[in-house]
Amino acid sequence: MTAGHLAVIGLGPGDEELLAPLARRMLDDATDLFGYGPYLARVRGAPGAVRHPSDNREELARARAALALAQSGRRVAVVSGGDPGVFAMASAVFEAIEAGPPAWRALPVEIVPGISAVLAAAARLGAPLGGDFCVLSLSDNLKPWPVVTRRLRLAAEAGLVIALYNPVSRARSWQLGAAFELLRQVLPPDTPVALATAAYRQDESLRLHRLRDADPGGADMRTLVIIGSAATRIIDRPDGGSWLYTRRDVPD
Amino acid sequence: MTAGHLAVIGLGPGDEELLAPLARRMLDDATDLFGYGPYLARVRGAPGAVRHPSDNREELARARAALALAQSGRRVAVVSGGDPGVFAMASAVFEAIEAGPPAWRALPVEIVPGISAVLAAAARLGAPLGGDFCVLSLSDNLKPWPVVTRRLRLAAEAGLVIALYNPVSRARSWQLGAAFELLRQVLPPDTPVALATAAYRQDESLRLHRLRDADPGGADMRTLVIIGSAATRIIDRPDGGSWLYTRRDVPD
Repeated sequence: MTAGHLAVIGLGPGDEELLAPLARRMLDDATDLFGYGPYLARVRGAPGAVRHPSDNREELARARAALALAQSGRRVAVVSGGDPGVFAMASAVFEAIEAGPPAWRALPVEIVPGISAVLAAAARLGAPLGGDFCVLSLSDNLKPWPVVTRRLRLAAEAGLVIALYNPVSRARSWQLGAAFELLRQVLPPDTPVALATAAYRQDESLRLHRLRDADPGGADMRTLVIIGSAATRIIDRPDGGSWLYTRRDVPD
Repeated sequence: MTAGHLAVIGLGPGDEELLAPLARRMLDDATDLFGYGPYLARVRGAPGAVRHPSDNREELARARAALALAQSGRRVAVVSGGDPGVFAMASAVFEAIEAGPPAWRALPVEIVPGISAVLAAAARLGAPLGGDFCVLSLSDNLKPWPVVTRRLRLAAEAGLVIALYNPVSRARSWQLGAAFELLRQVLPPDTPVALATAAYRQDESLRLHRLRDADPGGADMRTLVIIGSAATRIIDRPDGGSWLYTRRDVPD
């Protein structure tokens, strides 16, 4: 039997100009492509490749199906937007391997990194991640909401810049407002807050607020939220635009 | 006068296969290349491009020189390993702009994201960033050591996976051991700890420890350290290797 292979591939922000050549080569080489339907539809692969779209609440089932096909000898690619290791498919694949048949542990599995949503959003805004930062998911699908609020509070107390994935979803709309409310109890009201939606895509939208009037209504499922630290600054430009950046130094 | 341009470009882990096509195009287009000597020496650019190497403790002076040249009409590229926004040159460029002549605020500045060291290390290890995580610099060049230890403690108490940049330097060797000592007071002794050095390069080295016997001696300036959370697991493979990953879920 031909040895199969599983690659978990980061697509980056979606623009082919930001897709690593390694990822492009692995996509072209795959016999089978797995992924969330809308991501999969945008991916270019080999002409004969079989596509296996699935819903974004079915990550573990998708991982198992991809592993079983790799085990049968196929060259399988599982795709994720951004980086596959950040709130995406790589972790689900290893969960499936750990709970699956022992033979899956011998499969060649390659994680192909990509430019994550947080790095893409930061680049378009300026350099808001210039100091220490954290990356949190605001979803309470996989962890209890009190864990989310505790992490937010401790991260703010630690002086970290906070990047939020999954600020809203079809089923959830109140969490981002609750997060802003909580952070107003810890951080100064003029703390910069950015909402970056669809960075590097045609419908990109970048909004800068201060925490006192940060508006959760501007966020959707494709939005990355960045809350600054005491070292985060806004530079206004003559054309009316602004850059957001965090100084590298923390004073005594 | 021709309008100049400044691009701050992420080189990713160093392998051309992981360099975004956008970054390659901007490098080829630059008339002048600025960066830390050893990074700059590895970069391919246009044949006639002028190279301006400098030391890695001169970021602000390098940023000012690059901005002045862009202001004079040149197409300038400032390069950073990994992503330019993560403990790298993008923040220094905006610091220089904020403190510099007003005309610099009108310059076209583009930040070109790259695959950061933490994403590269994570991909080679498995999926250790599968849950909430933070990215801290262990350097006390730009912030007081008590700020570093406070952030480490709060991040561990928050249950975040912790990724450490700058674990050691020529001038510093004791900080990583002190960080492990501190974390042993907060986290279980069997917490997984990974030292990933030179990910995706020919002399790559990946080491897995448990916190109880994590060895700071294995780290150098090119090492990225990842300390797991309670959800981080090690999967042993039949060939003697291991995968490190963090589960997506946090139990009640």
